[in-house]
Amino acid sequence: MTESEKIEYQPVTVREALKEMKDLSEVMIDLAYSAALFHSHELAEEVLELEKRVGYLTYMLNMSLMLAARDAEDAESLVGITTVASATNEIAEAAADIASLVLQEVGLHPIVRDVFTKIEERLVRLTVTNLSLLTQKKLGELDLAAWIGIDIIALRRGKRWIIDPSEEEVIRLRDVLIARGAPLGIEKLKAVASGVLQNLE
Amino acid sequence: MTESEKIEYQPVTVREALKEMKDLSEVMIDLAYSAALFHSHELAEEVLELEKRVGYLTYMLNMSLMLAARDAEDAESLVGITTVASATNEIAEAAADIASLVLQEVGLHPIVRDVFTKIEERLVRLTVTNLSLLTQKKLGELDLAAWIGIDIIALRRGKRWIIDPSEEEVIRLRDVLIARGAPLGIEKLKAVASGVLQNLE
Repeated sequence: MTESEKIEYQPVTVREALKEMKDLSEVMIDLAYSAALFHSHELAEEVLELEKRVGYLTYMLNMSLMLAARDAEDAESLVGITTVASATNEIAEAAADIASLVLQEVGLHPIVRDVFTKIEERLVRLTVTNLSLLTQKKLGELDLAAWIGIDIIALRRGKRWIIDPSEEEVIRLRDVLIARGAPLGIEKLKAVASGVLQNLE
Repeated sequence: MTESEKIEYQPVTVREALKEMKDLSEVMIDLAYSAALFHSHELAEEVLELEKRVGYLTYMLNMSLMLAARDAEDAESLVGITTVASATNEIAEAAADIASLVLQEVGLHPIVRDVFTKIEERLVRLTVTNLSLLTQKKLGELDLAAWIGIDIIALRRGKRWIIDPSEEEVIRLRDVLIARGAPLGIEKLKAVASGVLQNLE
């Protein structure tokens, strides 16, 4: 992570913090498995960066909640938020533990690879090799989730990873995509990314 | 959980234990969110039962690994398994924390409900109200994952929950299904379950 890409530590609302933590923790598990399956140091390092972010958000959120609670009734209504936040933080830590294995060059034991087979069917890394409908629309317009049940969990453009890309993002030629979904959807995505499939039918 | 349904503590291989832990931890997160969204005590209790199972498997697995490691080289090749096992255990615990909120009657704070909106689009609970193609085939034959990107994560038959049903399971009339997938797939599943949609096109 270069200087210019450093995460900015802005004050956040409880709502925004919890939403970001929830979304990040989900994507981190997939990224950690991807890092292990594709033996990618860069992805593993992204997971560790994200874990720092989730840790920071947990800290900020708990501080905000403590300041917000003026009496026992407040505290009672807010305690559920802390629990969900701490659960997302635990999930993020679990993802970071798996990512650390990749960085420590601990090879994927055959038993672990076996267990990951089911995950492997759901995760794909592919390069967009052709101008196609994928490269012409915003992710929000493409709506791959509704169309083929696929989520783009990360994309690499040159040396930069974009994690959990927004609906405004437009996929470009030569982007590397990490996608998750059902096997049939993955096949369709591959066909579109390579230019074999040219329309949405 | 009645006496007859008690989990049997059988010796398990490392491979089987890790696979079961991995599958359970994934389904537990979805079940915990379902328990919160649908305010279901039964689902929450299932999550806590499953957490006991994952805890037990973690214990058995670590014991087996210790017995398997005869020298430093063995230990090094096995340490990755412990890490993945402990990560799945952390995820299971996070799910159990969320499930406990439901049992403690901590209401879903509006902020938490907001954050869960995205999850809500991916999870559905529905009752099979019509004889249809859903009720005539094994889950493995139906292959909902490949067809519409849907996973059946749990089903209730009478008073009994079947968690992470096997490919051999046949859905019956009046089963309650908890399913996960993309919004379009969920719409198709609803149409099939209610008898509106009668074929796989």
